[in-house]
Amino acid sequence: MNAALADILHRAAQLMLDFQSPKVFDKGHHADFVTEADLAVQEFLLEELAKAFPAAKFLAEEGEGQRLTDGLTFIIDPIDGTTNYFRRRRSSMISIGAVEGREPVFGAIYDPYRDEMYHAEKGRGAFCNEARLHVSEEPFSRAVIGFGTAPYYEELFEVTARTMREILPKIADFRRTGSACLDMCDVAAGRSDGHFEWRLQPWDYCAATLLVEEAGGRCGNILGGPVTYDRGIPHMAASKRIFEEFQAALQSVWKTL
Amino acid sequence: MNAALADILHRAAQLMLDFQSPKVFDKGHHADFVTEADLAVQEFLLEELAKAFPAAKFLAEEGEGQRLTDGLTFIIDPIDGTTNYFRRRRSSMISIGAVEGREPVFGAIYDPYRDEMYHAEKGRGAFCNEARLHVSEEPFSRAVIGFGTAPYYEELFEVTARTMREILPKIADFRRTGSACLDMCDVAAGRSDGHFEWRLQPWDYCAATLLVEEAGGRCGNILGGPVTYDRGIPHMAASKRIFEEFQAALQSVWKTL
Repeated sequence: MNAALADILHRAAQLMLDFQSPKVFDKGHHADFVTEADLAVQEFLLEELAKAFPAAKFLAEEGEGQRLTDGLTFIIDPIDGTTNYFRRRRSSMISIGAVEGREPVFGAIYDPYRDEMYHAEKGRGAFCNEARLHVSEEPFSRAVIGFGTAPYYEELFEVTARTMREILPKIADFRRTGSACLDMCDVAAGRSDGHFEWRLQPWDYCAATLLVEEAGGRCGNILGGPVTYDRGIPHMAASKRIFEEFQAALQSVWKTL
Repeated sequence: MNAALADILHRAAQLMLDFQSPKVFDKGHHADFVTEADLAVQEFLLEELAKAFPAAKFLAEEGEGQRLTDGLTFIIDPIDGTTNYFRRRRSSMISIGAVEGREPVFGAIYDPYRDEMYHAEKGRGAFCNEARLHVSEEPFSRAVIGFGTAPYYEELFEVTARTMREILPKIADFRRTGSACLDMCDVAAGRSDGHFEWRLQPWDYCAATLLVEEAGGRCGNILGGPVTYDRGIPHMAASKRIFEEFQAALQSVWKTL
């Protein structure tokens, strides 16, 4: 992967881990938190990426007034899994996706707790550190599915609970790590077979979508159509083997609302 | 902690990690799997514990015809988080609880992926390696709650989904790691505030119940009464601060059935 990008991610991770008791702020929605570490890591990433990639634009979780452009745009989540981070759950990732012509061209997700760098470049495969990643071949009936509860959007709690009720009998089990990036790294690495969240934002899924696709999987809008990067969507990721069956199952839950 | 017990757990973990592609067998229920590693680790534990504690009896997840006695009885889960184990999710624990007079007297849970030994002795506190553990002080409204889906019991899927629907608005969020032991180690360490599963077995919660209680938390039967060790119960664990509010919320979900 790009050496400058790897170096920036490693230094950002050190900054993140250096906070001993980061201050936590409430962003206004249900369970929507930000810490001083999210803000510091984002500021660091914006500065360092601007130096390394002077032509680039930015779209970041804790940013304001930023918009997707047709040029090279970095889509950044300084800490994916903020609640995990300040609760010391050791399941949070730093995610940097790069979009050009509104499509991901490369991306990297760093797990500072396991020192694992997940990275992908369009057409060149997905990797964890040096190891090539491949999605699983499990059938849907034995699938392990990660999910997000869309905790900031109370209007989606009903569909999330119904999804658990309707799909649990059809698969092996669900997992909920609290980091969409980590869940999608799991899909790419074959440690799970799919992931969904009824509303997810581009910084949550930009790098991870490319990672899953380059590992041989598929991503999409649950309700149909491609993944977009200018606004949030109901997002799903899965192995190629289960994608269609999983999407049909999710869509049929939506139709019961 | 007891040095013989620690040594046995470390050697069992090595045995567990040495399997490269363990064979997986179906136990008959929905999503109820056992691997050759579970069987080998259990056999190793039974042999080694019998040598180190000649008077002890045993009750183990993969055992048959074993019953709880009033004497010293080890209650064993050779691999808690079997699906995580064979999917390489790195979230599985080895759990050994010791019961005397039908009450836990000591216990240890080992995380082979992080080399963390959780251990507790009645009246002497809970520890991770050398560090004393304390439950959190978060209010229920900001609680992170781990849960099990009781995946082997399809008759409990409805109450599990309703619990998610009813309790998510009242707390910060849920987590689902796939290992009840890991979830309860999180409660003891203050990385989450509670855990529940509508049916859990003594080998899943024996050591962990003592760990949570010795870290200043509480455990119980969701529907009321103490934790028992001769049969499974609807089990909950929580910080002292949220226990009653959490239990009342779970009971009111049960009443909607």
